[in-house]
Amino acid sequence: MIRLTPEPLTHEGFKPFGEVLEATSNTSVAANDSRFARYMNLANVDIDDGSSGTQISLMICEKPSTLPYTLPLLERHPRGSQAFFPATNFAFYVVVAPPAAEPDLLKLRAFVTNGQQGINMARGVWHNPMIGMTAKQRFLVVDCGLSDNCDEFELAETVILEQPR
Amino acid sequence: MIRLTPEPLTHEGFKPFGEVLEATSNTSVAANDSRFARYMNLANVDIDDGSSGTQISLMICEKPSTLPYTLPLLERHPRGSQAFFPATNFAFYVVVAPPAAEPDLLKLRAFVTNGQQGINMARGVWHNPMIGMTAKQRFLVVDCGLSDNCDEFELAETVILEQPR
Repeated sequence: MIRLTPEPLTHEGFKPFGEVLEATSNTSVAANDSRFARYMNLANVDIDDGSSGTQISLMICEKPSTLPYTLPLLERHPRGSQAFFPATNFAFYVVVAPPAAEPDLLKLRAFVTNGQQGINMARGVWHNPMIGMTAKQRFLVVDCGLSDNCDEFELAETVILEQPR
Repeated sequence: MIRLTPEPLTHEGFKPFGEVLEATSNTSVAANDSRFARYMNLANVDIDDGSSGTQISLMICEKPSTLPYTLPLLERHPRGSQAFFPATNFAFYVVVAPPAAEPDLLKLRAFVTNGQQGINMARGVWHNPMIGMTAKQRFLVVDCGLSDNCDEFELAETVILEQPR
């Protein structure tokens, strides 16, 4: 009989088996105009189809936003989908427009999640740089870690995200 | 000026832009001897490197386990890594042994997370089928959705996971 007593999970201890997904796992970069700290490449997503570009990261809200919120710009990722999943139960907002050479502002849609939902944005969907409403909110992100994967579009019109009804 | 009022996020509404990551997004299968309901293929992880095998799913604990816990078997995934991330803050247990033709039971390690941590298990690492300690606990899972991706190893010895100290 073998009796195992769990030891606290640490990067060092788990290294022979994979990676720990947490914000101390790696260095962070300032993202979304420093509203988030993004901890990049937390995991080696190693899938048997030749893929190498998928990354798992954590984004932590450093500067919360409030509604009404004026969108600074829209962005899209031409090289892959992008999933956001809340690491605890909290609602978040997403503004999207269909893939196109330029976003059609008349087709903008705004959504609010129910607190448990995440989203996966399809490749090329125009969207707001993610905002958080509370400091230290964490999102798990699954997206393409390859270079040249963000196009930005400056908004000629003011776009304001209002409080949900 | 464009004023956007967020609408509640639904699968139907978000369909032109991607997928909603939640347990109602898709059909579930019983997993881990029915201890979990697993909602498969919630997202089209579409990365610009030819990959097609990465899936995002949610596992929801239907039958909580208690410690001490006797491991039913060990498993490994030969075709890819497997990440588990808690959808709310809760600690979980993982038992692992290094990749090998058969698990070396003398090299088993047991870990307990700190409540905010997730893990990514490297391809081929032997591990316990995931257990949950509370009903309805949710894990976000990022792994290989290709077929023939689970080897099981029957334990000749009784292996017991004890309470952490």
